[in-house]
Amino acid sequence: MEARPATATDPVPAPAAPVRPRRTGYRRLPVQQRREQLIAVALELFAARPPEEVSLDDVAEAAGASRPLVYRYFAGGKQQLYEAALRSAADELTSRFAVPLAGTPSEQLAAVLDGYFAFVAEHDAGYSALLRGGSVVETTRTSAIVDDVRRAALKRTLRHLGVREAGARLTLLVRSWISVVEGASLSWLDEGRALPVGELRDWLVDQFTAMAAATALHDPQTAQVLSALLALEGPQATRAERLREVLAAR
Amino acid sequence: MEARPATATDPVPAPAAPVRPRRTGYRRLPVQQRREQLIAVALELFAARPPEEVSLDDVAEAAGASRPLVYRYFAGGKQQLYEAALRSAADELTSRFAVPLAGTPSEQLAAVLDGYFAFVAEHDAGYSALLRGGSVVETTRTSAIVDDVRRAALKRTLRHLGVREAGARLTLLVRSWISVVEGASLSWLDEGRALPVGELRDWLVDQFTAMAAATALHDPQTAQVLSALLALEGPQATRAERLREVLAAR
Repeated sequence: MEARPATATDPVPAPAAPVRPRRTGYRRLPVQQRREQLIAVALELFAARPPEEVSLDDVAEAAGASRPLVYRYFAGGKQQLYEAALRSAADELTSRFAVPLAGTPSEQLAAVLDGYFAFVAEHDAGYSALLRGGSVVETTRTSAIVDDVRRAALKRTLRHLGVREAGARLTLLVRSWISVVEGASLSWLDEGRALPVGELRDWLVDQFTAMAAATALHDPQTAQVLSALLALEGPQATRAERLREVLAAR
Repeated sequence: MEARPATATDPVPAPAAPVRPRRTGYRRLPVQQRREQLIAVALELFAARPPEEVSLDDVAEAAGASRPLVYRYFAGGKQQLYEAALRSAADELTSRFAVPLAGTPSEQLAAVLDGYFAFVAEHDAGYSALLRGGSVVETTRTSAIVDDVRRAALKRTLRHLGVREAGARLTLLVRSWISVVEGASLSWLDEGRALPVGELRDWLVDQFTAMAAATALHDPQTAQVLSALLALEGPQATRAERLREVLAAR
């Protein structure tokens, strides 16, 4: 986390002789820096355990701060802290949707998926709890943050496909594929990461091609997009060729 | 709803002269029948509006019952009534997963999807609210009911494919396809049912074939299942043939 110019300091004075800063003493930090630190610490705890099992005291202790101090930054308590941590995680995830300039469309998609799985691996329990639903900290606000991320993923994917105005069927295809990515990452965590992440990534790239092909049967716009993608794959289009082979009736 | 043998009657006596039973008077009903009636009425209301907008009084009024009577059956109030209604809807949906005996695999899948979309159309707002998350009535219990339905769908689909022991990849394929079905039905409701439901159903059948093909590239078990399905399609395997065409590089 970057240190930003201080505009004020913690409203709680530091004790005279802090011996172990993270447990018994409170360090004086600039306001913006303290806020970011609390969010970062909360995010780490919410990533490691379901939100039910994280208390405000846990965050305070891990941040080397007092409970009243945390409340001064987050008057709404744990729920507000959770939402701030979620927003910060959402921003981080969205930033990973940037598509690299080099490579074929499949290679670019694979690179974005690598970033996605790195994020999932890092936020493990928190990611599961969030997407699984039924959590006590889930509200219309947290759902809206998740929806924002999905919308950003949709937008980036359509841009990656070179589409300006997506029709209903192409939109449905991309949304569906994104839900497959989400589901696959949850299954991956559930199964203790048993499937190699590289295989899962390649499977998702192949799924994109296959799902686009199924949509192309119903939609000229998707047919055009798929055709352009296959042309760009060049010698890499062997995956599409292998799809054709398994679809041949015997 | 079937009338069952009465074992007791409503604990609240019916007024002397009920003129309009559904608005001003309370009818005396056998206990089991009254319970089922309350659940059916609640389900109808929860289907039409998000759970936030349905009150216990709404249910009482629509059922021609008093508020205390509803509480006598559902001491946990609206939340308990919601969960009972959800459980009843889940049972109904699961019963629709039965695969017809006649037809090719694609025709059978299409028939099950028709039943699914009929259910979705009937439970509209309640279905959306439930699957979208962030609802105030959502708890670990309601999530567990939804998970039960997904598990039943997975089990039925694997049985339909003639699979006894599904490996991780085949399971992931079926789970992913089920999430595509869910997402597509939500999109369909969101867009005011603009896409013809028959097209959506055919798109989902094609998605199953395409997604199975992509999985077959990574998994011998799925390759075997797909190959058997294509053989059973017979002259209907023209869909797979069309998938092969759109996947041909130009």
